[in-house]
Amino acid sequence: MFHFTAIVTCLAILFYFLTSIQVAKARAAFGVKAPATTGHPDFERVFRVQMNTLEWMPIFLPSLWLFAVYVSDPFAAALGIVWIVGRILYLTGYTQAAEKRSRGFGIQAMVCGVLWLGALGGILWRLIHP
Amino acid sequence: MFHFTAIVTCLAILFYFLTSIQVAKARAAFGVKAPATTGHPDFERVFRVQMNTLEWMPIFLPSLWLFAVYVSDPFAAALGIVWIVGRILYLTGYTQAAEKRSRGFGIQAMVCGVLWLGALGGILWRLIHP
Amino acid sequence: MFHFTAIVTCLAILFYFLTSIQVAKARAAFGVKAPATTGHPDFERVFRVQMNTLEWMPIFLPSLWLFAVYVSDPFAAALGIVWIVGRILYLTGYTQAAEKRSRGFGIQAMVCGVLWLGALGGILWRLIHP
Repeated sequence: MFHFTAIVTCLAILFYFLTSIQVAKARAAFGVKAPATTGHPDFERVFRVQMNTLEWMPIFLPSLWLFAVYVSDPFAAALGIVWIVGRILYLTGYTQAAEKRSRGFGIQAMVCGVLWLGALGGILWRLIHP
Repeated sequence: MFHFTAIVTCLAILFYFLTSIQVAKARAAFGVKAPATTGHPDFERVFRVQMNTLEWMPIFLPSLWLFAVYVSDPFAAALGIVWIVGRILYLTGYTQAAEKRSRGFGIQAMVCGVLWLGALGGILWRLIHP
Repeated sequence: MFHFTAIVTCLAILFYFLTSIQVAKARAAFGVKAPATTGHPDFERVFRVQMNTLEWMPIFLPSLWLFAVYVSDPFAAALGIVWIVGRILYLTGYTQAAEKRSRGFGIQAMVCGVLWLGALGGILWRLIHP
């Protein structure tokens, strides 16, 4: 079973959900009414945090689970925690200024790279050693 | 096996696909040519229905499946049907006016909350009672 | 096990990741700074390639895996490869002109239709023949 990866999946969903709450708050704070998604740069950066997190979910979640299945459940979960931390740094940085988004972005991208490479390596290993 | 959840997943994908068909129709009806995604408020609301459904897919689908695996397949599927109904109400409401999107949105959000909490509870239960 | 589908999932994630690299390059080439996502039609088409690929990921990946589980792993993987090829044609076409996106789009949409129908058929078959 993959209990640790399952918990981290729940936490990643929670974080992602919180980025959309930030967008709702920023809509009210900067007077950007739905369906508009532009109109104030401070709103647009908060909106981009949610969108970018959404954009990375189909990279993160499948890589996380393939890594968990083909390599290790606790190792996948540990990497998933680092991903969430990177995402939190990205959120706090980008909300302040567009230039401050790089560090958190780099961390979460690196984690996804490790998960993806580990998963691919694990799959190929199993194909070769059935 | 998780046959009921699998069927509801197919239905959720079908509904989500239909929201993108609505966008294609709205492009033609309101003269908003690709790659533009703004230009007419009636188009923008239809576009936001698709985008918001997309935004919730990484919340709904993993929560649904973790709930199915850790709690119950038919119960997950039943909640999934309620989610789709909430999404249909959201679509029909938002297409009319931005203010009419709340009820359907609330239903689908509540379903996701139940799925998420149930999944997390189920995982923690299994960790404690191996 | 579903080794072939797992590999194709890694390849699909890689392709999707490359569409976001194209967006970063187009930001630099056409002077569209984050968080803006509009401002130059050549940038906007590249951005829409990434967004549209994102939009199809929740259709493609679940359909692919349900097909793999309920029908066939190598057949799912083969269809997944055709999907990626369709996506590459969509990318190269749309980057040139909005009108040139149709062929690749049609191929990847058809593959998703086959995966979805096959998955649904497979699930119903198993329900009827337990």
